Amino acid sequence: MKNRYIANISYDGTNYYGWQVQSKHRTVQGEIQRVLTEITGQTAIVHGSGRTDAKVHAKGQVAHFDLAGNMRLDKLQTGLNALLDPDIRVNSIKQARSDFHARKSAVRKEYRYFIWNDRILMPFLRDYRTHILDRLDEVTMAKAARRLIGRHDFAAFSANPNREIEGTVRELYRLDVRRYGREIRIIAQGNGFLYKMVRSLAGFLIQVGIGKLGPADGPMILDTKTRTAVVPTAHPQGLFLWKVFY
Amino acid sequence: MKNRYIANISYDGTNYYGWQVQSKHRTVQGEIQRVLTEITGQTAIVHGSGRTDAKVHAKGQVAHFDLAGNMRLDKLQTGLNALLDPDIRVNSIKQARSDFHARKSAVRKEYRYFIWNDRILMPFLRDYRTHILDRLDEVTMAKAARRLIGRHDFAAFSANPNREIEGTVRELYRLDVRRYGREIRIIAQGNGFLYKMVRSLAGFLIQVGIGKLGPADGPMILDTKTRTAVVPTAHPQGLFLWKVFY
Repeated sequence: MKNRYIANISYDGTNYYGWQVQSKHRTVQGEIQRVLTEITGQTAIVHGSGRTDAKVHAKGQVAHFDLAGNMRLDKLQTGLNALLDPDIRVNSIKQARSDFHARKSAVRKEYRYFIWNDRILMPFLRDYRTHILDRLDEVTMAKAARRLIGRHDFAAFSANPNREIEGTVRELYRLDVRRYGREIRIIAQGNGFLYKMVRSLAGFLIQVGIGKLGPADGPMILDTKTRTAVVPTAHPQGLFLWKVFY
Repeated sequence: MKNRYIANISYDGTNYYGWQVQSKHRTVQGEIQRVLTEITGQTAIVHGSGRTDAKVHAKGQVAHFDLAGNMRLDKLQTGLNALLDPDIRVNSIKQARSDFHARKSAVRKEYRYFIWNDRILMPFLRDYRTHILDRLDEVTMAKAARRLIGRHDFAAFSANPNREIEGTVRELYRLDVRRYGREIRIIAQGNGFLYKMVRSLAGFLIQVGIGKLGPADGPMILDTKTRTAVVPTAHPQGLFLWKVFY
């Protein structure tokens, strides 16, 4: 008889080849599984709510895993944090119903994309912000963002639409662009995101911000349902998986 | 005929053996001097306002150096930032009077020490905060800090008082302790600081915060003029050289 656990996890993706286990590279999932085995003596797959790419961060990734026996939750959390490197932290662990699934049970996800829009990027933010020197017009970016909200085929904003087994239609509930001084924050909420979709949306919005594309281009690009070089993929280090809703 | 320049510099000290040039290790001064030579073909000593230790950061370190010929300031700044790693940034460069000296002309310096006072330290702050799990009493810490303000012999709060060629008396203008949620910030301003003095003050204040020492212990420790194990040196990663006043 195994019990299911849910963990809320933060990580700095700088030194990892993304979330998903790879045979030759260090990944967040791989590290957590390795440490979990070290603590419990059991082999468990740590199922995340979704993958994140190399250098992408998470403030609130959620993952579930099954373990035999009864674990003391605080001991499990303390043990994981003691053995993991400080760039991965388990914020909380709780027991879950056996039908809970970190990916399938998620009803909404929030990503945040952070742009530093100034001549100099502070050293302390170098791994956590995309640096854009040209002054971005955040008002026009926000206009362009609003025209992408809703249920659409986002194939043109995905890196590899043919890979998506659940199709390429997703609903975007929220896509906000706001400036906070030298920083621009993009907040994206949706019922799911295609591969590299947030970075493609951010790449598109940056093009709008520097005046190379306009708000009307968003719906036109959606209509093509084809990814082209018109939409660049913004750098990974500005991206955070912020919150998963269940 | 050489001209003197002043640079304002930020750096993340995590990957450096401190400010000062060392033959075998990578240092901030060493990197800037190397890149300066690469750009100008000239060898110049980059005189900082003071040293910082390994893993200590700077938001506003100030340094001066002399170069022959007339340099375009914006080109010099852009060139330095292009060749330096992104964990060192030159925020500004201006020309200085020939009698300006980054260390000797400084009239006041400000350091800030950041403590993360919660069970979990976010991965993104791991190199920029000292992590203290025990709940710190910031009100008592602030009281203890106020009793250290003024002109004193700070030998008991220095790592190596015999090394100080200008003696061990310094004036502390300001020593503030404030809590901002899970974070505690110590701001220290003085006319100069002894070797490891801010980290020793922070180490003392942390002992007060956890109740091992009290506000009355500060003046008593000062009076001993001797460094003992009663005052621990707080970790380097919480410390920032914040601003140098001229």
